Amino acid sequence: MSPVNVTIASGASWQEVAADRQRHRDATIASLNPPLPKLSASDIPLDTTGIPGSILTAKELEITEKNVEDLVSLLASGQWSAKTVVQAFMRRAAVAQQLTNCVTEILSERALQRAAELDDHLAATGQPVGPLHGLPISVKEHVGMKGYDLNAGFVAWVGQVGEEDALILQILWDAGAVFYVRTTQPQTLMHLETRSNLYGTTVNPFNTTLTAGGSSGGEGALVGLRGSVLGIGTDIGGSIRSPAANNGLFGFKPTALRLPVSGWSATMAGSDHIVGTIGPLSTSLEGVSLFVRTILSGRPWLREPSLVPIPWRGKDQLEERARGRKLRVGVIWDDKVVRPHPPILAALSRVVAELQKSDEVDVIEWECWKHDLAWEVIAKLYFCDGAAEEKAAIAASGEPLLPLSKWILENPHVREHTISTLWQAHEERQAYRTSYAAIWNERDVDVILCPAGPGVAPKLETARYWGYTSQWNLLNYPAVVFPVGTKVSREESAQGKQDNKEHEYPEAYKPMSEADQYNYDLWKEHGVDGYVGAPVSLQLVGRM
Amino acid sequence: MSPVNVTIASGASWQEVAADRQRHRDATIASLNPPLPKLSASDIPLDTTGIPGSILTAKELEITEKNVEDLVSLLASGQWSAKTVVQAFMRRAAVAQQLTNCVTEILSERALQRAAELDDHLAATGQPVGPLHGLPISVKEHVGMKGYDLNAGFVAWVGQVGEEDALILQILWDAGAVFYVRTTQPQTLMHLETRSNLYGTTVNPFNTTLTAGGSSGGEGALVGLRGSVLGIGTDIGGSIRSPAANNGLFGFKPTALRLPVSGWSATMAGSDHIVGTIGPLSTSLEGVSLFVRTILSGRPWLREPSLVPIPWRGKDQLEERARGRKLRVGVIWDDKVVRPHPPILAALSRVVAELQKSDEVDVIEWECWKHDLAWEVIAKLYFCDGAAEEKAAIAASGEPLLPLSKWILENPHVREHTISTLWQAHEERQAYRTSYAAIWNERDVDVILCPAGPGVAPKLETARYWGYTSQWNLLNYPAVVFPVGTKVSREESAQGKQDNKEHEYPEAYKPMSEADQYNYDLWKEHGVDGYVGAPVSLQLVGRM
Repeated sequence: MSPVNVTIASGASWQEVAADRQRHRDATIASLNPPLPKLSASDIPLDTTGIPGSILTAKELEITEKNVEDLVSLLASGQWSAKTVVQAFMRRAAVAQQLTNCVTEILSERALQRAAELDDHLAATGQPVGPLHGLPISVKEHVGMKGYDLNAGFVAWVGQVGEEDALILQILWDAGAVFYVRTTQPQTLMHLETRSNLYGTTVNPFNTTLTAGGSSGGEGALVGLRGSVLGIGTDIGGSIRSPAANNGLFGFKPTALRLPVSGWSATMAGSDHIVGTIGPLSTSLEGVSLFVRTILSGRPWLREPSLVPIPWRGKDQLEERARGRKLRVGVIWDDKVVRPHPPILAALSRVVAELQKSDEVDVIEWECWKHDLAWEVIAKLYFCDGAAEEKAAIAASGEPLLPLSKWILENPHVREHTISTLWQAHEERQAYRTSYAAIWNERDVDVILCPAGPGVAPKLETARYWGYTSQWNLLNYPAVVFPVGTKVSREESAQGKQDNKEHEYPEAYKPMSEADQYNYDLWKEHGVDGYVGAPVSLQLVGRM
Repeated sequence: MSPVNVTIASGASWQEVAADRQRHRDATIASLNPPLPKLSASDIPLDTTGIPGSILTAKELEITEKNVEDLVSLLASGQWSAKTVVQAFMRRAAVAQQLTNCVTEILSERALQRAAELDDHLAATGQPVGPLHGLPISVKEHVGMKGYDLNAGFVAWVGQVGEEDALILQILWDAGAVFYVRTTQPQTLMHLETRSNLYGTTVNPFNTTLTAGGSSGGEGALVGLRGSVLGIGTDIGGSIRSPAANNGLFGFKPTALRLPVSGWSATMAGSDHIVGTIGPLSTSLEGVSLFVRTILSGRPWLREPSLVPIPWRGKDQLEERARGRKLRVGVIWDDKVVRPHPPILAALSRVVAELQKSDEVDVIEWECWKHDLAWEVIAKLYFCDGAAEEKAAIAASGEPLLPLSKWILENPHVREHTISTLWQAHEERQAYRTSYAAIWNERDVDVILCPAGPGVAPKLETARYWGYTSQWNLLNYPAVVFPVGTKVSREESAQGKQDNKEHEYPEAYKPMSEADQYNYDLWKEHGVDGYVGAPVSLQLVGRM
């Protein structure tokens, strides 16, 4: 790393700052050894996921096709060295960057030095340093690293440097992790897509006309292409789950105040009206679980005292809950605000049909209670200063306000609060949470199965509806996104039309809301062909 | 109960409202059967604790001298009926009211009906309804009861009525509790004493020239006189611990967001910058423990979703922490802001000497880190609207602003925040907590032993220094107050002077601060004789 000299403070224009950051990124990639071929736009198909196989070595492919649980085992036993593994992932990440524009920098020097330390330790002691010994982990840019730029997606913030590694990185480091790549995020961190004036747009590796999601969209695309199998994202309205869902990954938003967030950079420091969370995106559920278990076993609450000391309960709690009766799964088909696109409902139909075959599960229809009100309540608390800090951070460099920034910062619920209106909004938040909890108590379900968004990965610049994810941020319930294993395809849709009404909107469908009209129009405009290749994902929500 | 008709809204003056509330209180006491003798002021000695023994029957004394753990056993087995027990406590509470002015009303009709139900249930089924079957519990007034006045100490709020029982009362009710008396609190709920324009001043039963403490001072005096053995208080700066300490009781302030607070009445609804807590005062440690265990086993987090689902860990955690080494106890002699009065330091000396004799304990001197800053940080967050709501609630009736209200509402750290200054204050809070946690990690103690205040129960109108309790509200650490078993006396002080330097201030003592000067002057003015009879208590603080 080196200090960033081209900054607004040094007199550069926002365009010069962005160009310099991109040069830096490219330089970190160019330094990889062996070097990678430079792809031209015409080399990149709509579905990019086959490209790494044509560029990487067989060994690199073998390594990067493994999931977290296999990698930690191979690394701990010394069958693969940490150096070999991280080199393979750095090279695959470099390919992913060319395909989707998901990387802000590759940390090859730091990563190779760390890997060498770990390899030496294992050789000397015969023991791994911890449960993540040698595991490469990718990191969203705004999670601070000591000595590295920490711009949080604002041009004006380039030149700010992490004072120390974020606490979550310190704990993962102690467990043996290797940090090797940092990833893109949108302006304001408050899009469900990933576009900034620093790096441009991150696209979806399964269909480059679609978004990778956001705000952890660099992680989504990178892990989607297996340039990482475990990445760190952040989520205050869907920012882990949208990219996970859009890229066919597992993504977990924990209950707030369980995993440590100190050391991240964002606007509104000190705002705790809706509490943001940090969590994993992974190619496997075990990757998610190992991540959370490892951090909790580091007892982060002793160092970040706002956290609550709840240990990992694994499956015990569910089994406890369900003991003596079937597991009760509530199903949300739609939230009565926006009907999900046909591929989501079709997938949900199939999953529900499978659950209904089980002797151990009861499926209950979950009628949504005022999810439109939920959006009002949370949107009123996102930017309590009227989005003054975001606007100031953008204005400071003269960078343009991007359309999805404008969409969220200027939504009709944003206001500059007084203490009095803030307390009222807190009371509305508490009243909503209490009412929803009472409904959950009455229905007595164990988990809710629901869409992860109003469709698969959206067309670029169209991800406006947050309700399927922000609902669970408002309620502060843990939620995990998972792939159902299918992708949007003409064949599947044609097949589905014959045996499942969920493969199209009902005839003469009347949208329920303005947001539903928008979502409906998107489907009418683009249809199956417009979203072809996109992975289909769903969401499971627990309580606490 | 009956609706309150004499209110500000009905055109009454504040004096008329107060007189009516007192008439109501006296009527609830007059209805007790058999009736109690009316004491005149000349009947009431400085130390009132012997008076109940001269008024109550031997059976009533036997019942009310039992602690929680014995009562629940005698009630569950049916040896004593719920009716007999609650009648004894109602009569003793009525005596306590005459001695200390601690009661707002006795709920005899409700309590006797409830007791009869419980007795019938036990007779019919042979089983208690729950772990608190028949246990009388006293309740601070601002914890709402369905249909009862809920004024939180403001004259203007008389006539507001609880819409339902507070969640904590519902859970205790389900466990078998009998609510039979409501207790006094100060104007604003933000004194460490108990004086309101509705009821006047609650005094200390051990020395009526001293305060019972506050803001749960009605509970403190009532439990101090064993008119209750388990009461419910609330604490955002010391309001459970000050009355517990002043009356020689066990009082527990849990970590915030563990016990349910929904249904209490106070100003600043929606304010969560410093989170208030609810908790028990009891004549026994087991009373405290049973209270918390019972509530947590009711899983309140499912109904009040801001709570965190941490079950009761009992002694396991401490044993886990201390395994393989001695229990490490940090000792605070003074907080480097205010030196405690001699009886506190003398008691601390004796307890430390006992601990030092143990093979299982290491005693570590705990040097306090910026407790003066801690007060600034918390005081800046108590009244974020500049105390506008408190001033409005007082002004609405024309009742006088009491001196200790003025002291806290107009302290130099109070300001009307903007969102921006609020977030800065949150950051200061988080920074302080993080720094203190780092110190605790470094010193690696299990608990801190410290004073519960700058002295024993203060002279009336002098309880100005909150630092020994508010420190742990800011840090959000659990803290329990306990009696050391001694009281201030000339004999003990004289004895102490011969063998313990802590029985007086050092010669030519130079106060450390303005607050210390004030506290020092109090001792110089009143000395042992001024505080004679006051129980001596200390505080133990854990982490989470």
